[in-house]
Amino acid sequence: MPKPSARTGRVTIVDVAQHAEVSTTAVSKVVRNAYGASPEMQAKVRKAIAELGYRPHAAARGLRGQTYSIGVMLPNIRNPFFADIIDGATEVLEDAGYQVLMGPGCNGEAEEARVTETMIDHSMDGVILIAPVSSRQHLEHVARSVPTVIVGRHGRSSSYDSVADDDLSGAALVVNHLADLGHRRIAHIEHLETDPDHIVEMPNAVRADGYRQAMRARRLDEHIDVASTTYTQEGGYLGAQQLLARLHQPTAIFAGADIVAMGALEAIAEAGLTVPGDIAVAGYDNTMFAGFAPVSLTTVDQRGRQMGSTAARLVLDRIAQPRRPASHMKLAPTLIARRTTAVLPH
Amino acid sequence: MPKPSARTGRVTIVDVAQHAEVSTTAVSKVVRNAYGASPEMQAKVRKAIAELGYRPHAAARGLRGQTYSIGVMLPNIRNPFFADIIDGATEVLEDAGYQVLMGPGCNGEAEEARVTETMIDHSMDGVILIAPVSSRQHLEHVARSVPTVIVGRHGRSSSYDSVADDDLSGAALVVNHLADLGHRRIAHIEHLETDPDHIVEMPNAVRADGYRQAMRARRLDEHIDVASTTYTQEGGYLGAQQLLARLHQPTAIFAGADIVAMGALEAIAEAGLTVPGDIAVAGYDNTMFAGFAPVSLTTVDQRGRQMGSTAARLVLDRIAQPRRPASHMKLAPTLIARRTTAVLPH
Repeated sequence: MPKPSARTGRVTIVDVAQHAEVSTTAVSKVVRNAYGASPEMQAKVRKAIAELGYRPHAAARGLRGQTYSIGVMLPNIRNPFFADIIDGATEVLEDAGYQVLMGPGCNGEAEEARVTETMIDHSMDGVILIAPVSSRQHLEHVARSVPTVIVGRHGRSSSYDSVADDDLSGAALVVNHLADLGHRRIAHIEHLETDPDHIVEMPNAVRADGYRQAMRARRLDEHIDVASTTYTQEGGYLGAQQLLARLHQPTAIFAGADIVAMGALEAIAEAGLTVPGDIAVAGYDNTMFAGFAPVSLTTVDQRGRQMGSTAARLVLDRIAQPRRPASHMKLAPTLIARRTTAVLPH
Repeated sequence: MPKPSARTGRVTIVDVAQHAEVSTTAVSKVVRNAYGASPEMQAKVRKAIAELGYRPHAAARGLRGQTYSIGVMLPNIRNPFFADIIDGATEVLEDAGYQVLMGPGCNGEAEEARVTETMIDHSMDGVILIAPVSSRQHLEHVARSVPTVIVGRHGRSSSYDSVADDDLSGAALVVNHLADLGHRRIAHIEHLETDPDHIVEMPNAVRADGYRQAMRARRLDEHIDVASTTYTQEGGYLGAQQLLARLHQPTAIFAGADIVAMGALEAIAEAGLTVPGDIAVAGYDNTMFAGFAPVSLTTVDQRGRQMGSTAARLVLDRIAQPRRPASHMKLAPTLIARRTTAVLPH
């Protein structure tokens, strides 16, 4: 086994290249998960990395002036859906020798500015911003300072890459599932938006729009009924209370997020109604708790893990090629039918 | 309104002091949430900060060579209990002008070393490590490089501060609750530990010990029955399957964590048994989902928010006084009785 370089006592990229009998460029490519490294090359280099205990993080930093850290901003860490995105991103980034550091954006423009500024101050090599609420102008400002990928927000910019769920199709999946079960009075609980940017770009707004479009496509226009609250447990509780107080109660509620569905279930239980016997409930996100035995919530899987890994590949790719054109990916969601939705009783 | 300092165009601590008509030391105290700032002083300074739009983060860094960032390492972001700790810590730290950056430790010594090293490399002013699995030796190594607070792990060191739940009492709360309801065959699902350090210091091990002690105190020695798996949903599922296969099935299961209880509920439902009719189930952590209407899980609240805010105060305090003696806090948990536990039927 070759000795680590005498000067630093540390294993360097040169040691790895010699050990693997490839070029340092090849090692760098594998470490960065860049395109153009063959599977054989990757296997050779990864074997050498493992055998020498090479840590690209610290070693390569000295070599190239990078910090080998990527900042991930998330709105809150309480929503397990974001954990799926983080898992997907972390896996790709750690394989490439990057450390992930997360900052909580807390759904506020000032908080988000503070987090992104801190990440830039810390010379992070790239940032992934999950469902940011900041103005497009601010996002473009960030993207001018550091390679940036926006996750879960629609709207395209030439300054940053993005990955989003196809929320329009996702909402249609839910409406069609409920309509196929015989439901007509299908109501929706949305997260209210007033900012014009947000109405076009935020996933919740696109989901509400998708609900309306799908209802019209099923000729259920007259049954369109939306409670405007927030994407929180309390928002779901209050939204369902509003809907249950209608003259014509809905027979099905499509909550815009799983956490909203949990609040709705609470309001429905309090009203003495059963799910799905009296009323069907569906969520969105396929969060961990949607699958718990006592919950068993019908929901939409928006492939959080794949969103995260795609975002990570985009940010690595942009670090390698800062001037390439922006890339905007949209992932197709799938319906997960569980116990909270059933055929409408006659 | 005074102008920001001419040199930098930025509002400085000096501007804030002049505007509030106090000393810069006083401003610094308020910003750091240090002891010795009166409520009037705090109000004056906070008003000046708000009026001038002072950002201690960036401004004070130039002044004092700090980065005004605190690293928080957490085992995974999927457990909502950790989110409570982060919320409590973030509130105190942001008030004091510090930005929180989180790194996922992923329950591995190598991963934890990588995260703490990254935080030290980024010159973070302090670190809070939540339930780390690393050796005490490694934790003391970290504490020599940066002010360190360990959360949720027992064991005291003179090198770092710590905040932990009184897991021994918490386990007794559950056993006593179930015994008071008439249960005698109360089983426990634990997260298996083999490392000698961990057996003494990890909360799961202390909880299992607390279960045994409390069973003996209630003269239920002969009914002590532990399934050793892991603190995961799958661990709960497998643990409950083991317990249900016993010749003498338990009438109550104390799962060491809420997520473990969720797996247990799944195994119980699959076995065609009802909760709490056939078998009572209790968890630990009072996570968000324990309170969901369809779940309604009896559990133990270990005051995650207060653990986080206490940890934040300890780290700020140690930044201000690096040489003060180590402080080790223990918080008293409370029982939250919900629908999954009931009186043993005769």
